[in-house]
Amino acid sequence: MDKVKSYIEKNKDRFLNELFELLRIPSISAQSDHKPDMTRCAEWLAASLMKAGADHAEVLPTEGNPVVFAERIVDPKAKTVLVYGHYDVMPVDPVDEWRTSPFEPVVKDGRIWCRGADDDKGQLFMHAKAFEAMCATDSLPCNVKFLLEGEEEIGSPSLYKFCADNKKMLKADIILVSDTSMISMQIPSITCGLRGLTYMEVEVTGPNKDLHSGLFGGAVANPANVLARMVASLIDENGHVTIPGFYDDVRELTAAERKAFNKAPFNLTEYKKALEIGDVEGEAGFTTIERTGIRPSLDVNGIWGGYIEEGTKTVIPSKASAKISMRLVPGQDFKKIAKLFEKHFKAIAPKSVKVKVKFLHGGMPYVAPTDMPAYKAAEKAIADTFGKKPLPFYSGGSIPIISGFENILGIKSLLIGFGLAEDAIHSPNESYGLDQFYKGVETIPLFYKYFAEK
Amino acid sequence: MDKVKSYIEKNKDRFLNELFELLRIPSISAQSDHKPDMTRCAEWLAASLMKAGADHAEVLPTEGNPVVFAERIVDPKAKTVLVYGHYDVMPVDPVDEWRTSPFEPVVKDGRIWCRGADDDKGQLFMHAKAFEAMCATDSLPCNVKFLLEGEEEIGSPSLYKFCADNKKMLKADIILVSDTSMISMQIPSITCGLRGLTYMEVEVTGPNKDLHSGLFGGAVANPANVLARMVASLIDENGHVTIPGFYDDVRELTAAERKAFNKAPFNLTEYKKALEIGDVEGEAGFTTIERTGIRPSLDVNGIWGGYIEEGTKTVIPSKASAKISMRLVPGQDFKKIAKLFEKHFKAIAPKSVKVKVKFLHGGMPYVAPTDMPAYKAAEKAIADTFGKKPLPFYSGGSIPIISGFENILGIKSLLIGFGLAEDAIHSPNESYGLDQFYKGVETIPLFYKYFAEK
Repeated sequence: MDKVKSYIEKNKDRFLNELFELLRIPSISAQSDHKPDMTRCAEWLAASLMKAGADHAEVLPTEGNPVVFAERIVDPKAKTVLVYGHYDVMPVDPVDEWRTSPFEPVVKDGRIWCRGADDDKGQLFMHAKAFEAMCATDSLPCNVKFLLEGEEEIGSPSLYKFCADNKKMLKADIILVSDTSMISMQIPSITCGLRGLTYMEVEVTGPNKDLHSGLFGGAVANPANVLARMVASLIDENGHVTIPGFYDDVRELTAAERKAFNKAPFNLTEYKKALEIGDVEGEAGFTTIERTGIRPSLDVNGIWGGYIEEGTKTVIPSKASAKISMRLVPGQDFKKIAKLFEKHFKAIAPKSVKVKVKFLHGGMPYVAPTDMPAYKAAEKAIADTFGKKPLPFYSGGSIPIISGFENILGIKSLLIGFGLAEDAIHSPNESYGLDQFYKGVETIPLFYKYFAEK
Repeated sequence: MDKVKSYIEKNKDRFLNELFELLRIPSISAQSDHKPDMTRCAEWLAASLMKAGADHAEVLPTEGNPVVFAERIVDPKAKTVLVYGHYDVMPVDPVDEWRTSPFEPVVKDGRIWCRGADDDKGQLFMHAKAFEAMCATDSLPCNVKFLLEGEEEIGSPSLYKFCADNKKMLKADIILVSDTSMISMQIPSITCGLRGLTYMEVEVTGPNKDLHSGLFGGAVANPANVLARMVASLIDENGHVTIPGFYDDVRELTAAERKAFNKAPFNLTEYKKALEIGDVEGEAGFTTIERTGIRPSLDVNGIWGGYIEEGTKTVIPSKASAKISMRLVPGQDFKKIAKLFEKHFKAIAPKSVKVKVKFLHGGMPYVAPTDMPAYKAAEKAIADTFGKKPLPFYSGGSIPIISGFENILGIKSLLIGFGLAEDAIHSPNESYGLDQFYKGVETIPLFYKYFAEK
């Protein structure tokens, strides 16, 4: 392992420069005008993995953005690790809140500032460089396959079919994923739970055109007011989601489980201070970490209608819309929740408006067993580099494809992420600590070592 | 009057071409990048009024957009009519709903399609051309002054001071305004009531940056959800505005007055059909024409927050905002309502968010007496051209400066508008019927005649 470590040390500046090349490609999957960037990004990655030591690397078409597949088979009898990551990134708006250009990486205060710096280009690139270091020093103890997709941020719509069509190619003992966070650099953790997701869009239509709010105000239902009313009614005064059946399949934790769960380090005062909020808000009867870890939630991710520019316009808009997503916990089925949402939202619409409800994407919740060999290997590897045994951690986030992997390929995933809350993924000014990046590159080869040991 | 009529007939095509020149200037007062268009529009109007027969016409500066003033004094002892209009127009978004270019007038189906075709360029230009026809045929029986402003659509912020500073120059017996609508071409009407307006903007801030909705969803108040909740709570299930004190000063009509008011022709089935709505919605216990004519209302004119582009983004926005305006009726004071709104909106904010409340603009309600000489003169003039005595009509709209004129200049306004509901002012595809335009040009000289008669 010393050889690997010194290889990393010697090449660390080049690793960073290469990551910067990757970060400069604005591969936003949600916006169709970035289509050419997706292909460019995939090709860049395939070339990079070839140089790193892959036997072969390919850009494979899907119904959507291409997938990068690469592999190096050291011994057909050795264990096989399938590294999953995504090269697509979130949109960058509101652009004017970025302190630096979103796609021009800058190092400042020991951090890389750029969209994708953490999520997930920075994290997936740690795997590419750890792989290179092991190849270069002839110390790769497992077969390695890379599966890098370009649609994670939009719910991986093409990857399910791709997996079903390529089961043999993707055969592995474990799927290794760095797309999550740790509690802190002092309190390392491994994510063993992910929430599921159901993402909907609704449109409320009132009159057939925008109306003068003086001539019609008070007599015609205003879809913006109606939408506000309908959205408000989705959560009651106790923070409960009011959609009938929403909680039916939620696995309720036992008192002992809840007690254990709440032992995770958490400081409410610091939490509020970091977010500059006067108070937290959520489901009555649950702690903050329970609210994000083991309870489902409902959030408006976007709302719009009427005149939203400078100044005033006295208008009753014809339409108002919202993007609403729900995070789900084990037991809940994202498709069933989508149906319940649609049925309820249509049921609560007054006669004065018409509503359209569209399912945008979703995914199942996931729980990783803490007793599987890969978890144990990761625990050891992290203990070596962080000097502390990592805690199991339930993330509120979702990586819908993870449960897809289990269903389609029959392979469990290990979520060994090196992100931190302060990385501000999905927000303006996303960043990734240089220490997080290099610590990741250093930890990964140790994982391979312990995982290969059996 | 025959001379005037034949002059109009002979010049009608030129009148239209001139109006088109005026309509092509995109004088949107709400958007500061249109500043140069405001001056260009004012200068065009001053030149046009000079050519029409004014003794002099000037573009006068104000603290905001310039005012056009022109006059022709025929006899210091004759009555003086002050024509008021506004050359600024509403913003044009949503632009993609326009069937033709918003600032390129097109005649189709007997109508002029363009932003400002009715409101108010088309209507004010009828006065310019009626004035020209009277001057050219030596049949102007009154002194005429023109006061055309460029800030009506943003609440006339500079005109109050301009009036206070120029009382002598603006001295007149009546203010003549065409900036309202008739019931229909078959049922002509004169507007004798206008609602007042209080226009506010609110901003709800939760966390100090956009957050990942998975990592924080369920635990942190989402300002978009909170805004929806707060906005929804402003109107109760009976359609009453819940702001304490909101109705305190509303003048309630007597049973007899309400009975008379409801005699105005109105067909609910046709109203719903024209707007393609399943039902109307408003304050319980009042009819649709009462809801817009004599009752105050509250409308969201715009709402926005979070990700509103194509696709999905799993974000808890840091902020969400809304533009909310209230229409007021006689008795209500727009400044008092603004204060009540601000106090209430701040009071209902949960501890989990911060709110900002901003007053954007406002104006007082107005009632025109139906027994003043100008009203009687207009009644006769309209009866001549429309073949039917016009009905008094209460509009739900607002022209805030009208009550300002009464307070500052001590002059009543006569609201002789030739618009129709189908003109879709403030909406995409605004239009103005050629018959409305020419009927207006023809009616105005008759008004002068009857008004001069005493």
